[in-house]
Amino acid sequence: MAPRFAFTIHATDGKARAGTIAMRRGEIRTPAFMPVGTAATVKAMKPADVRASGADILLGNTYHLMLRPGAERVARLGGLHSFMGWERPILTDSGGYQVMSLAELTKRSEEGVAFRSHLDGSRHLISPERSMEIQRLLGSDIVMAFDELVPTTATREVQAAAMERSMRWAQRSRAGFDAGGDHAEGAALFGIQQGALDEGLRHASADALKAIGFDGYAVGGLAVGEGQEAMFGVLDYAPGQLDAAKPRYLMGVGKPDDIVGAVERGIDMFDCVLPTRSGRTGQAFTRHGPINIRNARFAEDQAPIEADCACTACRGFSRAYLHHLVRAGEILGAMLMTEHNLFFYQRLMADLRAAIGEGRLKTFADSFRALYAERDAS
Amino acid sequence: MAPRFAFTIHATDGKARAGTIAMRRGEIRTPAFMPVGTAATVKAMKPADVRASGADILLGNTYHLMLRPGAERVARLGGLHSFMGWERPILTDSGGYQVMSLAELTKRSEEGVAFRSHLDGSRHLISPERSMEIQRLLGSDIVMAFDELVPTTATREVQAAAMERSMRWAQRSRAGFDAGGDHAEGAALFGIQQGALDEGLRHASADALKAIGFDGYAVGGLAVGEGQEAMFGVLDYAPGQLDAAKPRYLMGVGKPDDIVGAVERGIDMFDCVLPTRSGRTGQAFTRHGPINIRNARFAEDQAPIEADCACTACRGFSRAYLHHLVRAGEILGAMLMTEHNLFFYQRLMADLRAAIGEGRLKTFADSFRALYAERDAS
Repeated sequence: MAPRFAFTIHATDGKARAGTIAMRRGEIRTPAFMPVGTAATVKAMKPADVRASGADILLGNTYHLMLRPGAERVARLGGLHSFMGWERPILTDSGGYQVMSLAELTKRSEEGVAFRSHLDGSRHLISPERSMEIQRLLGSDIVMAFDELVPTTATREVQAAAMERSMRWAQRSRAGFDAGGDHAEGAALFGIQQGALDEGLRHASADALKAIGFDGYAVGGLAVGEGQEAMFGVLDYAPGQLDAAKPRYLMGVGKPDDIVGAVERGIDMFDCVLPTRSGRTGQAFTRHGPINIRNARFAEDQAPIEADCACTACRGFSRAYLHHLVRAGEILGAMLMTEHNLFFYQRLMADLRAAIGEGRLKTFADSFRALYAERDAS
Repeated sequence: MAPRFAFTIHATDGKARAGTIAMRRGEIRTPAFMPVGTAATVKAMKPADVRASGADILLGNTYHLMLRPGAERVARLGGLHSFMGWERPILTDSGGYQVMSLAELTKRSEEGVAFRSHLDGSRHLISPERSMEIQRLLGSDIVMAFDELVPTTATREVQAAAMERSMRWAQRSRAGFDAGGDHAEGAALFGIQQGALDEGLRHASADALKAIGFDGYAVGGLAVGEGQEAMFGVLDYAPGQLDAAKPRYLMGVGKPDDIVGAVERGIDMFDCVLPTRSGRTGQAFTRHGPINIRNARFAEDQAPIEADCACTACRGFSRAYLHHLVRAGEILGAMLMTEHNLFFYQRLMADLRAAIGEGRLKTFADSFRALYAERDAS
């Protein structure tokens, strides 16, 4: 029988690591990129095509799923994997980030966050205990602790208070998860470091989490508008404050060059809506930077987005055709562009893993950055 | 080398025929259903999945394609087949129906129809000659003659005049097609019978078309709101007025039970947006009638749409999941529902061909109708 959760580091290169997380539903190759399947679907993608892109694990959103179709309903239907046709690992977030960004009339207390649904106005509460229960009902493989977020522009006092509350909630998340019976026997729990851009707060948060003990550690509270330079500033020290033997997950990141820089700083896992969302609006990622396929210069461009890409879009269709589909608002445009972007991200992760394995990460990263210029991010 | 156009009837059963049309880009098994690929895409479907459903041929819309991306552009890009990634036969309509139903400020004359684009207001003219030119530029395998449509509720005088003009346009279409050089060597041209619900006009139209000579004959001017009974009334005699050795195509039809009744009356080819359009709005076809997957009774229904269907939706997903996707407005809902409906239609065509081949069409059709009750067309 496969282990519950075993992280093996196969190679290191500077601060970067290449490894494998073994879980009952399958292996996760790290550094890993997790496509986002918000509402029990990676938007515009069949699960088999998500897998074909190279994804080992998806992310599901607790906030969205608890509102629609509802965690209890998903449980009655046999869990999220069976429901959405993805039998490999799924990581679920705690709902903490999205309840603060999407819900209405939110009210925070030591207990948790009370709110009204943005879909129908219904009243709900997410607490650390309820978040653990929802993620258990969904059948999540990697459960995230419930935490409190405040803007990086808040005062240090507010940041400190939020971080300290998040650590108390991390303790309650640990207890709630451990009380989950069979689910806790097969799943993993990650803690989330907070502390915004403050090294001291980050250090205190890391120590508190390590004292509780988790299967992995996320760097939280970044990619919220602070910019790449400030983010890399935190990543210069934050991963080193966490347990080196456990996976480190940078939540909500990011652009391809964000990922490359974060891997160089010791991050093992990523998730982001960028490849899927961009695909639906006409942006395609290439090694020469993103292109906006709606641009008139692609109207009669017979080349594929990228000649050596293995996705359906690049194997069978021209930029001219994708330009037409996206301009005409055709669903197939969203499908093909999304698939390309997911293939692009997974190939980047495979390239990073190979470069680490062969001790040439700096060469790869420098060459990637030189090629990758955002020449058309419109 | 494959023939330009060879229709072989393998079996007959009453008025119904099962056969094969051999063309350079592949064989078309009849009775055939042609999915509609309006804007160079069968909406929400990859071409490989359209083929997997059993489709031998697609329909493309001249009106849409001439406006976006433009027939000359498609020609510069190598033709419609290469552009949209479908190497099998494509039938294109003449633009006559859609210019009257979609364009703005249309003005008819003996020359053709002048109009403004519904997309950008640009001015255009479609004449028989221009329709033939557009279909040639697209690289159509089966070209439709350009005809004039009037409502079935118009006076007999108006009907007669429109039918007679359509026959003059059919002659001009034949000449325009034949002047198409290489394209005419490889493609086929169909004439379109008009005459609304009037047997005498239908007869005169059929005679005029046969005197010109076409590779196949369409029954036009039906499925425009007259109802199944009136349509079947025309189909009781119209196919018999056409050349029995050539394929007969009923344009724009239809519901599954329309198709069954039309096949019994001697029709060989069909096209309709119903399976694709319905898929995007949540209607799924089943042998027990259509169901609206948004209905609350499917919220926890773990069965697939149809247990013995080979489509991606039925092999991997429950009605409960599709209910969730469609309610949440997810693109994957449109993708899976569309795929199911195309598989349903193609299986119906395969069942009809088999029943004709085995001389049991009446038994099959009666049993199909008994099962198929529109219990939830909401």
